[in-house]
This record gives sequence, structure tokens and C-alpha cells, in this order.
Amino acid sequence: MAEQTFPFETLEKFTVSAFKKIGCSDADADLATKVLLSADLRGIDSHGVARLSGYIRLWEAKRINATPAIRTIHESPSTAVVDGDGGLGLVVAPHAMNIAIEKARQCGTGWVSVQHSNHFGIAGYHAMMALEHDMIGIAMTNASPLVAPTWSVERMLGTNPIAVAIPADKQPAFVADMATTTAANGKLEILQRKNKQAPEGWIQDKQGNTSTNPHELKDGGALVPLGSDYEHGSHKGYGLGSIVDIFSAVLSGANYGPWVPPFVAFLSPPADPVGKGIGHFFGAMRIDAFRPKEEFKQHMDNWINRFRSAKPVAGQPKVLIPGDPEREMNAIRLKEGIPLNEKVVEDLKELAKKFDLNF
Amino acid sequence: MAEQTFPFETLEKFTVSAFKKIGCSDADADLATKVLLSADLRGIDSHGVARLSGYIRLWEAKRINATPAIRTIHESPSTAVVDGDGGLGLVVAPHAMNIAIEKARQCGTGWVSVQHSNHFGIAGYHAMMALEHDMIGIAMTNASPLVAPTWSVERMLGTNPIAVAIPADKQPAFVADMATTTAANGKLEILQRKNKQAPEGWIQDKQGNTSTNPHELKDGGALVPLGSDYEHGSHKGYGLGSIVDIFSAVLSGANYGPWVPPFVAFLSPPADPVGKGIGHFFGAMRIDAFRPKEEFKQHMDNWINRFRSAKPVAGQPKVLIPGDPEREMNAIRLKEGIPLNEKVVEDLKELAKKFDLNF
Repeated sequence: MAEQTFPFETLEKFTVSAFKKIGCSDADADLATKVLLSADLRGIDSHGVARLSGYIRLWEAKRINATPAIRTIHESPSTAVVDGDGGLGLVVAPHAMNIAIEKARQCGTGWVSVQHSNHFGIAGYHAMMALEHDMIGIAMTNASPLVAPTWSVERMLGTNPIAVAIPADKQPAFVADMATTTAANGKLEILQRKNKQAPEGWIQDKQGNTSTNPHELKDGGALVPLGSDYEHGSHKGYGLGSIVDIFSAVLSGANYGPWVPPFVAFLSPPADPVGKGIGHFFGAMRIDAFRPKEEFKQHMDNWINRFRSAKPVAGQPKVLIPGDPEREMNAIRLKEGIPLNEKVVEDLKELAKKFDLNF
Repeated sequence: MAEQTFPFETLEKFTVSAFKKIGCSDADADLATKVLLSADLRGIDSHGVARLSGYIRLWEAKRINATPAIRTIHESPSTAVVDGDGGLGLVVAPHAMNIAIEKARQCGTGWVSVQHSNHFGIAGYHAMMALEHDMIGIAMTNASPLVAPTWSVERMLGTNPIAVAIPADKQPAFVADMATTTAANGKLEILQRKNKQAPEGWIQDKQGNTSTNPHELKDGGALVPLGSDYEHGSHKGYGLGSIVDIFSAVLSGANYGPWVPPFVAFLSPPADPVGKGIGHFFGAMRIDAFRPKEEFKQHMDNWINRFRSAKPVAGQPKVLIPGDPEREMNAIRLKEGIPLNEKVVEDLKELAKKFDLNF
């Protein structure tokens, strides 16, 4: 599959223009672009500009509100529930995370559950917003049902990611950002494009047998929870995905489980919603609500240094700290540009034509 | 391996007496017993009365303080750090969880990190303390290093469990309680006793190759993080175990990573500690800090009913909700007694002799 590389600024300019064309304010278009393209920069290609036309199609289907009145509908000193008013998750999520940060500033920690939102890009972006405030950041979201619980053939959960960002001193921050499935859906999309088989333990077919066909989900198959099968702890992955679903949607009043509306515009949302839109959950914990931040950060440096120096398996890469690969990719792509595969390029050219933009 | 079954009350009486013999107050002996035996009742045999003599040996080695002055050393409206003063984790943990619950009552959520503690039994017990207050409970702890990070041969993390308990209305609560490894160490102990092989993907040998020998840890091997190997997401299990370690110990000032002191008294703690004792982390979130609790609980019932009715794989057990197996076991064992294998029975008889107690 041919690839073409674009400078970050080119994609940035185009994406901002596209969001403005659907009616986003200048500030919202800038913010949505920053969040969306952070995925491309960090190497999570499935969640970046490749999804831009998907967001636009949802707007065309009147399932995204480009000018939402985002508001807090319930709160306590350390919590809030935010109604995203059907806005882009790329805009609603940073708004909610800022509330969590403000609550943490006031009373040590802040926790915000969000209803009536849409896909929010990569969870890691929002968690990392806490870092500059010397806080730990947490972000999670539910998503379209693609994952079967252990012992089931039915798609009940999304890939429901969890991100946790923890500041250090001289070392870069610890940033874990993980789907609660064995493999993220984006990895499957890459195999589909390349016509390659998936490893065993990523997917099951419609009977619940393990499958290596990356197209299996089109034929009633499902992704499996982290752990792959019961013997290897898939009930734990199912438990984690469920916790994300409940914190994001049952706490907020969004749709949960199989009721979560699909990201693709050609599939209709369930006719019997149990809440509004999709749900997210954010947390911020001020370091110095626990111990002096300098002390904490020095120990985080020690933690990171010690884990980096853990004895590696012979012939294997060195031991990594969560966030290392994405940070390294970010530096490379800012300098060398972002490679897009030809299907994504075609898609963006279509979008450019539709909106009379240059690409 | 022969087993003998004991009424719960017999084990309870004996355990209370043993804790009193080391100098625990009546209240602490009762509490420690309640926490410890909740593991036996819930079917988590590795964490229950089988460990009683281990706690006693740690006390004999002067590594457990039977009369700790547990105190809060740092706090904010929604957070606290607790110094367990070397007490039994079985006593320190409920103390800290109660602080989290009280903070949540005041300002919506409460988060408590604990230093200078010891093994706290099952995480699920502490998380479930929140349920009767209409709160979500969270509990985690670090533990002796037995787990190698992805691409390492060195044991850097404990099995670092995460428990989350969420109240429902007519349905029983959702209670996830999981080690962040593919298999908990307790499962390995069972295989060791039965002289059976482990499945592939649970353990690695000292070179980092997968092994089915349950005794591999005695020969420099390690448990592996949830996911088993990189291709199946073990870096996610490693990330989760790391988050538990950092929240429990870097936030509180306890020992972290390879510095966590071993549970067994015959192994000395590291000579260069980076903190005090082992660390825990607790959270409590008041449901009505997010939405009216009746509304939430009704949606939890709907969530649970819908997941229970997810279409099962043909010939497989029905789909379970986290907490189902443990709750069912609890009811059976309260009625029919708790089976202990002969090694545990011998161990308890030894202890009875030492303390001049009946068993």
C-alpha cells in the first residue's frame, strides 16, 4: 500500500479548515485539530486525520453538533457531570478535563463524567493535559460495541481505552494509553489494508472460535478483551472494559454497552437509547494533595530509571516506559512529516473537493 | 492432595485468637480476621487463612507492628496519605478506606494513598466497603516483585491487584478484583501443590522464555503481565501493574517496584529502601455526586441484566458479571464450610501448638 508523507502543518491547516466548514468556531476548530492530529503525531494512525471524514459524515447525518452548548448539569466539590450537547468529543473532552483540573486545584482531585458526546480522539491527549499542572491525569471513554465478553459471541463493549499520565522530574512523563482489548481496532484496520492475517487471540468468529481473519468483524465476529481467552485472563480485560463503560456512561447518563451509537454514519444508532450519546470519564489528582511535588517527581525519576535498567531478555528491545514509543514518534513526525496511506489521502481529497478546499 | 473442611466459625475463632496472641487489640483481631477470611469465603484460597502463619512469622521477624499508631500525615479535602506504622495491612487498609469514604461524603470523592503497611488480604474486601454507603469503591496495592515487565527477565512488580465495586439496585453489586498479571500467584501455588503444569503464557523462565513449570519462580523465572506477551498486549498489563505501583507507593512514600519488601519472612527486605513498607491506594466515589443514586442503580441493574443475557458461546458457561463466582462461593462456604488442603491444616496445627490454642 503506497504511502505519501505530509508536513504536520499541511494536515493541520486542512483539518482546521474542514472543521470550520461544518460551522465550528475558530477556537473549536483549532482545538479539535490539535486533539485529532496528536494521534497522527504519536503514531496512533487509526485515530487521527484518517477519521476526519468520519466526523464530517456524522455531522452530515446530524449526529454531531458543531456549535454545542457544553454545560455542567450536576456537581460536587470534587465531581461534575458534563452534557456535551452532541458536540465533537474532540472539543467536549478537553472542556471536561479542564473542569477536572480546576476541581483538583480546589480540593485535591477532580472527576468528571460526560454524557451526550462523540468520539474524543486518543485518550492520552486528555490525560496529558494534567501534566503541566503537576497533576496525574486519567481519561477513558466508551465506544461502539465491537468486543465480546468472555464466553459470549455478542458484541457488548467498545475497545474502551484507559489513559493515565504521571509527571516526572528530569525524565519524560509516564503515559499509558491502552485499549482494554488484546489489540486495538486500529491494528486490525492496518492488517485489513495490507491483506495480512491477525495473530491468534485477537479476534473471534461469530461462533466464538479464535480467528486470524482481520475481516471477521464484518461477518459477525468480535474483538476479544485483553487476555485473549479465559485461561489467559480475558475476564480481567472484560472487567476493565466494563469499568470504563460504567464510569463513562452509567455515571453520566450516556449510552452504555450495546446501546453505544456507532462511529460510522452508515450504521444507525440503536432505536431504544438508554442515555445520550457516548460517555467519557476524566480524573485529575494534584500531586501535592498527596506529598510535596518535588519529592514525588524525584521518586518518579528513580522509578523510571530503575525500570529502564531492568535486565532485558537477550536479543529483545530494551525495557520501555509507557509513553516512550509515542513520544519518540512524535519527535520524528514533527520533523519528517506524517505518512498517510493512499486510501486516507483519497478520502481527504474527496473531502477537499466537497468543501472547496485545497489538499 | 487431601482436604479437610472447617466451619467458618471454627476458623474465625482460631484466627481471632492467633491475632490476639501477637498483641492485637480485640477490635483489630476481629477486623483482621474478618478481612483475612473474606478471601476463604470468596474462594480466593491463596489469600486467606493459608497466609495466617505467614503474617505471624513477619511479626516474629519484627516486620509487623501489632499495635500500630495509624495516622494521616498529609491531606486535602478529597485526599489523604496514611502512615500504617508497620501494622497489619488487614487493619491499616480498612482504616484508610474509611477515610476515603468520609472524604467522599464531604466532597464527592475520597482518595487515600498508604505507606508503611503490609499485605492487606484481598483488594475486593476494601473496595466493597463503599457499597453500603452508595459509593463506588476502588482498592489496589503493590506487592513483592514477582512480575517481569514486557521484554525483561527481571522481577520488578508485584501481582498488583485492582478492585472496583459498584452498587446496583435489585442486582448484586458489580465487583471486579483482579491481579494485573495473566494468572495470580495463588493459581500457581495450587498447581505446585497438585504437581501440575501451568498453561503456556502464565510464566517465563530466567531467560524470558515461556515455561509451563509452576516452580519456575524458584529458579529465577517470573510471572508475566496480563496479556502474556507483547503480541497479546502484555505491555498493557505491565502498564496497569505500574500504575498500581505508582498510585500505591510513589504517591504515598512506600517502597515501589523491586524495593517492595517480600511477604515471606525468610527473605530479607532490600537493604536500600526507597520508602516505608508496602503501599496501597483507595478510592470512594459517592454516586449522588454524579447523578441521583436511584437512577444510577436502576441503570446498573439494566447494565447487569443486559450483560447476563449476552448470547453465550455454544457449550460455554453463561456470561458472568464480575463478582458472580465469588458471591456464589461465599454463600456455599458460609453454609458448607471452608475446605483447606492438608499443608494448610498442618501449618495451622503448628501455629496452635506454638500459641497454646486449640485447632
